Amino acid sequence: MRISQYLLATVKETPADAEIISHKLMIRAGLVRKLASGLYNWLPLGLKVLNNIEKIVREEMNKSGAMEVLMPIVQHAELWHESDRWEQMGEELLRFKDRHSRDFCLGPTHEEVITDLVRGEYTSYKQLPAIFYQIQTKFRDERRPRFGVMRAREFIMKDAYSFHINEESLQNTYEQMYQTYYNIFQRLGLNFRSVVADSGSIGGNTSHEFHVLADSGEDEIVFSTKGDYAANIELAVGNLAIKNSSEARKDSEIVNTGSEHSVEAVAGLLNIGVYKIIKTLIVHGEDEEGNISDELIALLLRGDQELNEIKAQKLQGVASPLKFASDELITKKIGCGVGCLGPSNLKLRKIADHSVENLFNFTCGANQPGKHITNMNWSEGCAYDEVADIRKVQENDYSLDGGGILSVKRGIEVGHIFQLGKKYSDALNATVLDSGGKAVTMLMGCYGIGVSRLVAASIEQNHDQKGIVWPENIAPFQLIIVQIDAHKSRQVADLSDSTYEKCIEMGIEVLMDDRDKKTSPGVKFAESELIGIPHRLVISSRSLAEDAVEYTHRQHGEKQKVKTNDLIQFLVKLLSS
Amino acid sequence: MRISQYLLATVKETPADAEIISHKLMIRAGLVRKLASGLYNWLPLGLKVLNNIEKIVREEMNKSGAMEVLMPIVQHAELWHESDRWEQMGEELLRFKDRHSRDFCLGPTHEEVITDLVRGEYTSYKQLPAIFYQIQTKFRDERRPRFGVMRAREFIMKDAYSFHINEESLQNTYEQMYQTYYNIFQRLGLNFRSVVADSGSIGGNTSHEFHVLADSGEDEIVFSTKGDYAANIELAVGNLAIKNSSEARKDSEIVNTGSEHSVEAVAGLLNIGVYKIIKTLIVHGEDEEGNISDELIALLLRGDQELNEIKAQKLQGVASPLKFASDELITKKIGCGVGCLGPSNLKLRKIADHSVENLFNFTCGANQPGKHITNMNWSEGCAYDEVADIRKVQENDYSLDGGGILSVKRGIEVGHIFQLGKKYSDALNATVLDSGGKAVTMLMGCYGIGVSRLVAASIEQNHDQKGIVWPENIAPFQLIIVQIDAHKSRQVADLSDSTYEKCIEMGIEVLMDDRDKKTSPGVKFAESELIGIPHRLVISSRSLAEDAVEYTHRQHGEKQKVKTNDLIQFLVKLLSS
Repeated sequence: MRISQYLLATVKETPADAEIISHKLMIRAGLVRKLASGLYNWLPLGLKVLNNIEKIVREEMNKSGAMEVLMPIVQHAELWHESDRWEQMGEELLRFKDRHSRDFCLGPTHEEVITDLVRGEYTSYKQLPAIFYQIQTKFRDERRPRFGVMRAREFIMKDAYSFHINEESLQNTYEQMYQTYYNIFQRLGLNFRSVVADSGSIGGNTSHEFHVLADSGEDEIVFSTKGDYAANIELAVGNLAIKNSSEARKDSEIVNTGSEHSVEAVAGLLNIGVYKIIKTLIVHGEDEEGNISDELIALLLRGDQELNEIKAQKLQGVASPLKFASDELITKKIGCGVGCLGPSNLKLRKIADHSVENLFNFTCGANQPGKHITNMNWSEGCAYDEVADIRKVQENDYSLDGGGILSVKRGIEVGHIFQLGKKYSDALNATVLDSGGKAVTMLMGCYGIGVSRLVAASIEQNHDQKGIVWPENIAPFQLIIVQIDAHKSRQVADLSDSTYEKCIEMGIEVLMDDRDKKTSPGVKFAESELIGIPHRLVISSRSLAEDAVEYTHRQHGEKQKVKTNDLIQFLVKLLSS
Repeated sequence: MRISQYLLATVKETPADAEIISHKLMIRAGLVRKLASGLYNWLPLGLKVLNNIEKIVREEMNKSGAMEVLMPIVQHAELWHESDRWEQMGEELLRFKDRHSRDFCLGPTHEEVITDLVRGEYTSYKQLPAIFYQIQTKFRDERRPRFGVMRAREFIMKDAYSFHINEESLQNTYEQMYQTYYNIFQRLGLNFRSVVADSGSIGGNTSHEFHVLADSGEDEIVFSTKGDYAANIELAVGNLAIKNSSEARKDSEIVNTGSEHSVEAVAGLLNIGVYKIIKTLIVHGEDEEGNISDELIALLLRGDQELNEIKAQKLQGVASPLKFASDELITKKIGCGVGCLGPSNLKLRKIADHSVENLFNFTCGANQPGKHITNMNWSEGCAYDEVADIRKVQENDYSLDGGGILSVKRGIEVGHIFQLGKKYSDALNATVLDSGGKAVTMLMGCYGIGVSRLVAASIEQNHDQKGIVWPENIAPFQLIIVQIDAHKSRQVADLSDSTYEKCIEMGIEVLMDDRDKKTSPGVKFAESELIGIPHRLVISSRSLAEDAVEYTHRQHGEKQKVKTNDLIQFLVKLLSS
């Protein structure tokens, strides 16, 4: 394309709501424009990147043997009633009525539709396994859309679903999809990690997330510096560095801590390490039907550790989602509020994290206002009922899989694969006949990639002070030709035109900056860098005086003079490598 | 793909609601499945066709210099208020509220969004013209979705919009888009016609429709057998064949016609030609603000002609949309009801179609119950106020552009281009600065193609008794290899496999029917014909006994033995031509 006939929508200002670099650069480079909250127009330059990513995803999915389908965005309520998600889903599921007052929703995901489709088409175990995918617009009515296309309401997703006669087949396809995802993110030029994940509201057992590493990521992921271990922070386990000490057991003593409530303040006041304090958190229990009850439960953690709510709410009898007790209720039941609580003489079910198991001479609240106990030790009057892992792992914890230590990084979730098992196929009664002629419920897997989010994730990893630095595989254009003062030099104009035409002939995606003298060379250079085209040729009278044009590599910044006679040869070599 | 690992979802039964052949065949061949009324799942085989069509549309649009963008499906109400269409649009516009109770709709078209985008990005006449397009899912909440994907609620459209500084530029782009559409439909292998069309509710002046000719089409299109003239029936004009006669003027006479009301019945009773009768239709007028008034207007047509309502409602002072007066109101104002009306002594504004202008010795209602006048002639007491073209043209009318006669055919509208003028840019105040630095409102064009509808339209034209006959450009697979009794013959299995692999290597889209002995050769043949793959190879022991395989061309049906040694050479020649 010639820029004179193209919408190069670069802008200087970044919008006030752009918090992260990819959002800022996507606006500044003219890739997208906000239409309304969480709704974006993809401009020509941005859509080319999106299409390039889609193409790679499609190629790899096809290679895996998955069959592409396209399901409707608008879905009728009946199927969602069958799976029970019509009521279960929150307001993210945008529900509405059609002209005949029938209930519909905008598809945030398609488990129900694909399961309905497959139960209608498949009859025999011989037809399995089968993998279907689509690349499609989804809608989730996020409460607070943010970060541009990273967490938009309308977005593009590749969602895939697999169907199986047994666990072994599901496991095989799951591994195959894992490998396919690996290939996709590799081809996209991303620095990513896969981690064991919680399967959350989608349901099922095994699950992995694929994260692009970036400081702006909303998730924390944990991995071993030596072994293969990698997990979402919600699931991650590790061993605490053990504080060895030859200290003898001392006698406990009640001390006044006045209005100091936080572990840091109490540690400061008593001049002890934070790790010598026990944090006591009070949460609600739940009854056998899963309803929140008024029974209170104490969770005990070492003062320097944080609670992992996901781990805690999975414990039997603990309310899920986790619900902290109000200060009022605690005071009423225990006699003092948050800040002075401790396990000593506490008449509640007490769950201790591993981190407090071997503590001694520790400090904890005395369950009296303004008082703590120092040099406490586990004993009959100060005991826990059970031990569990309810701690968030931390940087430098020991990995359970061997020699390594754990590293915690921020990640952007771009892929998620699940072994769903029979959650949906059971609900929708999706069966096939097995080899004995008996109807059996199919097993399912599902596999998602955030296609539009990948554009932003890629920018988070590929940018510098000047702007975006596209990996070649997804760049909107491979090459930009910048002509300088073509109005003054016939030779500049001619060589630019002929090189541009030749590139098009060779199938090179080329952008030509043919804007007139009102756009200064400085602006042209800056914009070519902002929009991140991997390769740049500058054609000017100055370089032509030496029979050469100037080539610059966007990523490495290295410049090179290329003789005009060698130019086409140079481009062929450059862009076919 | 190997059918053993593919969803070949052919079925014998056609659903009860399938009225037209394309709908029946799309279900039977397993291209789509209905999810709910007007909502369809595209199965793997159907989606391949849809993707092939999309690819051709995209290539030709890119070639025209149009820039691809992607706008949201979900649109906020504010823009639709600006254009006044939030209220104007009927229930086709599906409106709903998001979680914050703000008004949104599902985009049935994107004039508002693109105009908003362009007014924000373009500032100078120098940036124009600009053409944008997208290939996207649209939603129109049709009252009565029917004919499968032909009139679905959710469908895929290519919509394009152009922006201009003046009429000349708009006209140039319009012509360029006309040519682009011509190229697209040519490449799709369709028998189509472009016709002058009414621009309807979209607004604007000049407009053309592109119709695929098919008996199942919902539209009537008219074209000259000799000249270039072609128009939608709503706009079409033509000259009536003149009935010459040397008959002398006679004296009129009132006759009893009793309870006979229809022109056919009266003609029968009086033993005259239907064309000798004048039909008098009574419609409402409208006041200067465009509101329907109680003034009645008489429309006069020759008995053998039909009223074209679109033409009539465009006449000044006639209610638009056209509203026929009730029998009650007519009786009250004229003294007799429908069936005995006529122009004689009728105290209303009377508009005569050209078809009655030269009539003589005609018959018309006497404006008295049960009475007509025969041998009437135009005179002071029986006159019309004005003459207009309010007639639907008919097969064999003379074309106005010269020697030809008019032919009326049924068509499926697959494309529509409009010169919108300033309808949307005025409403949304979309201006740029002209060469004098003055803000001027841009002119717009818009250009649509029904991408998913094209799959059905193509089948309407390309099928036979056995099933679909895909044109090569959009066929889901180019070649199908049918192996017969591979379980009995190692040679059949090996040659099938090696040919299949070789095809994939050569980039040929190939489907291999590797189903086992439970699927009979007859079923395999029938299904390969039903799904319409252009080229078929049958590999069986019988033909291998002659060192050959059997090739069949789907469209022409001709069979040919190909020696196994020549097979690859044969395929290269066949599929690269």
